[in-house]
Amino acid sequence: MKFLHTADWHIGKKLHGYDLLAEQKHAFDQILTLAQQEQVDAVVIAGDLYDRSVPSVEAVETFNEMMIQLNLTERFPVLAISGNHDSSVRLETGGPWFTHTHFHLHTRLEQAFQPIEMADTQFFLLPYFEPIAARLYFEDDTIRTVEQAMESVIEAMQQLFSPDKKHVLVSHFFAAGSQKSDSETKLTVGGLDTVPVTLLSAFDYVALGHLHSKDALQAVNARYSGSPVKFSLSERTHTKGVWLVDTTQEVSFTFHPLTPLRDIQVVSGDFKTLTSASFYQTVERENYLYLQLTDRAIIPNMMNQLRQIYPRVLGMERVNGRTTLNQPTLKTATPNEPKTLIAEFFASVTGEPLSEQQLQWIKDSLTAMLQAERGK
Amino acid sequence: MKFLHTADWHIGKKLHGYDLLAEQKHAFDQILTLAQQEQVDAVVIAGDLYDRSVPSVEAVETFNEMMIQLNLTERFPVLAISGNHDSSVRLETGGPWFTHTHFHLHTRLEQAFQPIEMADTQFFLLPYFEPIAARLYFEDDTIRTVEQAMESVIEAMQQLFSPDKKHVLVSHFFAAGSQKSDSETKLTVGGLDTVPVTLLSAFDYVALGHLHSKDALQAVNARYSGSPVKFSLSERTHTKGVWLVDTTQEVSFTFHPLTPLRDIQVVSGDFKTLTSASFYQTVERENYLYLQLTDRAIIPNMMNQLRQIYPRVLGMERVNGRTTLNQPTLKTATPNEPKTLIAEFFASVTGEPLSEQQLQWIKDSLTAMLQAERGK
Repeated sequence: MKFLHTADWHIGKKLHGYDLLAEQKHAFDQILTLAQQEQVDAVVIAGDLYDRSVPSVEAVETFNEMMIQLNLTERFPVLAISGNHDSSVRLETGGPWFTHTHFHLHTRLEQAFQPIEMADTQFFLLPYFEPIAARLYFEDDTIRTVEQAMESVIEAMQQLFSPDKKHVLVSHFFAAGSQKSDSETKLTVGGLDTVPVTLLSAFDYVALGHLHSKDALQAVNARYSGSPVKFSLSERTHTKGVWLVDTTQEVSFTFHPLTPLRDIQVVSGDFKTLTSASFYQTVERENYLYLQLTDRAIIPNMMNQLRQIYPRVLGMERVNGRTTLNQPTLKTATPNEPKTLIAEFFASVTGEPLSEQQLQWIKDSLTAMLQAERGK
Repeated sequence: MKFLHTADWHIGKKLHGYDLLAEQKHAFDQILTLAQQEQVDAVVIAGDLYDRSVPSVEAVETFNEMMIQLNLTERFPVLAISGNHDSSVRLETGGPWFTHTHFHLHTRLEQAFQPIEMADTQFFLLPYFEPIAARLYFEDDTIRTVEQAMESVIEAMQQLFSPDKKHVLVSHFFAAGSQKSDSETKLTVGGLDTVPVTLLSAFDYVALGHLHSKDALQAVNARYSGSPVKFSLSERTHTKGVWLVDTTQEVSFTFHPLTPLRDIQVVSGDFKTLTSASFYQTVERENYLYLQLTDRAIIPNMMNQLRQIYPRVLGMERVNGRTTLNQPTLKTATPNEPKTLIAEFFASVTGEPLSEQQLQWIKDSLTAMLQAERGK
């Protein structure tokens, strides 16, 4: 058979405050098109369907629509598990009904031992779990780590192996030797111990979720699909996509990249360049941009000016540092000269003198304030 | 056909901080047993399945289990709508799959115009909606109130009537002339306008949700089922239960009461009586109790003593008021007589003198404090 392996959809995730639902729908549409073109027999999603245990209403709506389209409208069997970001109980809602249309969503450890057989393959859907769950399931108090738990889990699975079938594990954890990127490192806190790749040798293919790069692990029989969308600045150089796995002969897998709706990019230059049309017209301005400014001078209203040109600024960095204020010059004015005080402050911060118009505004304001004071 | 009409389950609701999940499961078990005994053809739930738009994990787990048992294990068709307490989007999760086993859960206005036909009856499942939804659905800017919306809704439904069928409306709103109780009055804020009963005359039966008393409305063809569990002190005299509706001949309906796991009760008496075994052994102490105390005197450590006897106190009231402190007596002691000051304060608050043991504790404490002061 032929299946598509994806993971870490994180529906509802935001990037520096920017909503990514449009990006996520765009990636989903490409996954669906690919599934149709390649006529896959199933779509595997290896955990972290949502970004949070209590996703927003918009995220729930988006994910529900995707599943309706994938499973009910286009009739693809779906094999999915909950990841560490999902609430297994909340995600489980509807699960027992989903199976009627071959949408298998496993959220509890015990479900890992109910393999799903499709054509020539047995799928073991192992949701993200904490060691305590394995301790209870196996009634074995010696299980303290995910690695220990995985030994028991895989042993139990092997007893269920049909010898004439291919065996695929779908799982969500940190496999030892993998490389992390910024957007998932925070997630390893709290029980996501590493699992040595050697433990996985019993399977013909291991469809992993958790790490966001397809290159995080290079094992002969195991891959992270990575996320379908870039979720952090550090992922800007990732190629995002999905694996197509063919079990017909020797298991083989090929990567199919997805095109981002809006990419993540670093843009460098001085302020004058960044704000000149001849430059910014060459930049894909709708992208998510991280700006590296080479100027050292203080630039008034800088971020507002930049955001007017680049609507999705992820952040800004002064690569050469910033001019420090020359504090002593502020002390030349005496408190009874507010006009001079303001003029000196303005010059020290902006590096420019007040214009005639600005001076007039200050004079008018001061006069009005003085009159108001006296009127009391 | 024969169906059971219930509503306002409010799974996850708390009563003065007490978790009601056990009460709710107990009521559900009785509903299920009744459905089996009476061999009903469907179970109708007229909204407010959950108590909150984002129910707790425990509430989600409980409701999921109930639906699995009712619809998948016991194979009862279920006809349900979302109420004003439910998040229609969150509740909708799984909805398109539920229909495979005749679990019809309508959460959007447009679904009200997809009648569910079962045996001799057409069911119109109208979820709770705001006037704006009707304004958009009917593209009619003159719709401003629920009453106006209902006119259009019912007109549209009537065009779908099969003349040879009975017509049942399942809905969640405040029907004019109904009587409210404490636990749902707060809910009428924000769009739950009243709907005149005359609008409902087209239907053979209207299964209503929203008000928690079965007696809230006495119409020839419409009933609130009321909640299956008592949710407030004001509901203590309610008889909770469900309607069994028979559409075979002229539509008829009979009420079937449910037995509460723990009832809500008012207990009155003086403190001495309430705390004497001969009295409290006659009281169902596991119930949720509201205490009316007839004493006027101040009773030290009163609530703790009462809670040790009555574990589920909803509240306490001094029906005859309380003795006020006689402030001036506190002024007889001078600041250099701390022992006397404490003794007078104790007597004025409790109405009793200090015991010898208490006096000794005070002396010891004061001596220790004085020594500590001097030791500095």
